Amino acid sequence: MSGGARALPDPRFSLNQRTLRQWTLPELAAGCAAAGVRHVGLWRGPVREYGPAAAARLVRGAGLAVSSLCRGGFLTAADPERRRAALADNRAAVAEAAELGTRTLVLVPGGLPEGDRDLAAARERVADALAELGPYAAGHGVRLAVEPLHPMYASDRSVVSTLRQALDLAERFPAGQVGVVVDTYHLWWDDTVAGQLVRAGEGGRIAAFQLADWVTPLPEGVLLGRGQLGDGCVDLRWFRERVDAAGYRGPVETEIFSPALWARDGAEALAEVLDRYRRYATGIPAVSEPPPIPPSVTER
Amino acid sequence: MSGGARALPDPRFSLNQRTLRQWTLPELAAGCAAAGVRHVGLWRGPVREYGPAAAARLVRGAGLAVSSLCRGGFLTAADPERRRAALADNRAAVAEAAELGTRTLVLVPGGLPEGDRDLAAARERVADALAELGPYAAGHGVRLAVEPLHPMYASDRSVVSTLRQALDLAERFPAGQVGVVVDTYHLWWDDTVAGQLVRAGEGGRIAAFQLADWVTPLPEGVLLGRGQLGDGCVDLRWFRERVDAAGYRGPVETEIFSPALWARDGAEALAEVLDRYRRYATGIPAVSEPPPIPPSVTER
Repeated sequence: MSGGARALPDPRFSLNQRTLRQWTLPELAAGCAAAGVRHVGLWRGPVREYGPAAAARLVRGAGLAVSSLCRGGFLTAADPERRRAALADNRAAVAEAAELGTRTLVLVPGGLPEGDRDLAAARERVADALAELGPYAAGHGVRLAVEPLHPMYASDRSVVSTLRQALDLAERFPAGQVGVVVDTYHLWWDDTVAGQLVRAGEGGRIAAFQLADWVTPLPEGVLLGRGQLGDGCVDLRWFRERVDAAGYRGPVETEIFSPALWARDGAEALAEVLDRYRRYATGIPAVSEPPPIPPSVTER
Repeated sequence: MSGGARALPDPRFSLNQRTLRQWTLPELAAGCAAAGVRHVGLWRGPVREYGPAAAARLVRGAGLAVSSLCRGGFLTAADPERRRAALADNRAAVAEAAELGTRTLVLVPGGLPEGDRDLAAARERVADALAELGPYAAGHGVRLAVEPLHPMYASDRSVVSTLRQALDLAERFPAGQVGVVVDTYHLWWDDTVAGQLVRAGEGGRIAAFQLADWVTPLPEGVLLGRGQLGDGCVDLRWFRERVDAAGYRGPVETEIFSPALWARDGAEALAEVLDRYRRYATGIPAVSEPPPIPPSVTER
């Protein structure tokens, strides 16, 4: 992207707000609009702080659509009181999503309660919660998007670890109520994912598509290691092509959690994300890039 | 295990050497013999330092059998020179295993080479290497035990992440040449594991069974977070029962990587491991433990 007029980004590109955590909501709206970005993924914390109605006006005024709201979920509590609180919180999240005009509420299923070793029972409690929340969400024009998280989060964040598990869960409910999130960071290692993407597409279950790269070493707590596109070993274009082939036509959200990115100037970091997205997720070469060196020169 | 005569441990219990890294090989042999332990899992580094033949005499003299040697593997290099070196190193590991009198050489398959994003090709290179090493190992009375590692190691240590993948790979070769390692730490999150354990048993593929618990938060680099039995959320008894039901009758190796355990007196740490093993992996109550409180008292 160096020099010359900047090409407009892919109209399907969406910036998840956490990728540029250094930006306030007004900075995010202005920064995305200036860069020609058309969609943003928002998080409940900053949205509630700003006020959902005001946030909705702000992003709409900047010409942005909200691709998803992160996040509801954490539906594995066995204790009745905690369970009631989780359901109430998820109903509030549905209302916030509706107010923001997004159809997609991302749900992180939740991990094992303290001292609990029964993964199967925890998964059933998630299903029970979806049965309660699905019709409520659909009534608000919102779809619950179950996100399978990498198996390293199975104990503390998500007892749903693979796309197959997420689809097994989602398919118990109408496609208009429950879909799934396809996130490259969580699913890249799984050799069954190609087949499950086909299945997800056929059932109309892909509610969101998120990109991040896998970089090692993982940091302590393994939460803030989601890498900049192209810095790791995930074949992002492979995912993009398969998700497209599965019939998904919605926004492609870049969701990176990286303290290095947060430490930088927001506009500069966004320009890098857009450049990486173009190179690694779409395969469209930048106008200003030099032509590729012929293989005969590099192979020796 | 407090007070009174100490009951002998389960004759199938094996102590993996890394669990008590603070012990030298002679300390390990003496400490295990004193505690009534019958099997040890050894690592190549300390064995080579001591000398394989001397190590073999030492453990045999202490009445111990070697349940497995860790580890060969790292077979994913695409570069021909590195590949040749890896194969040579694995042949050396086979010879060391034979010298130690164990039938089981644990193989960690290896991750993606630097800059590589093609998991499927890396897995094929592992299969190619097994085709070369399998007959060589069998000729030495040693079986290659492919260890599926948790998906969080997929980029840097193992492109084989699930028991199903490991069995798909092993079943391309005779059962006498290639088996699999069942390690609770790596497999606990997977809801397909019960069915795959049945499959592994039917094919006579379970070459080793290892125990560690899953505790969070994971440490930086996620290598040294393998928890003491009972400290985490893995249903160890569930695994033990299923592996037994699958027909496996070999040693049950406890393999914990925990700096907290390494900081302690070896004999005291081993006593705790044995106690935890009995309580969490076998379900046999200790003689000195108080009788369980009746449910009617605890349920309110």
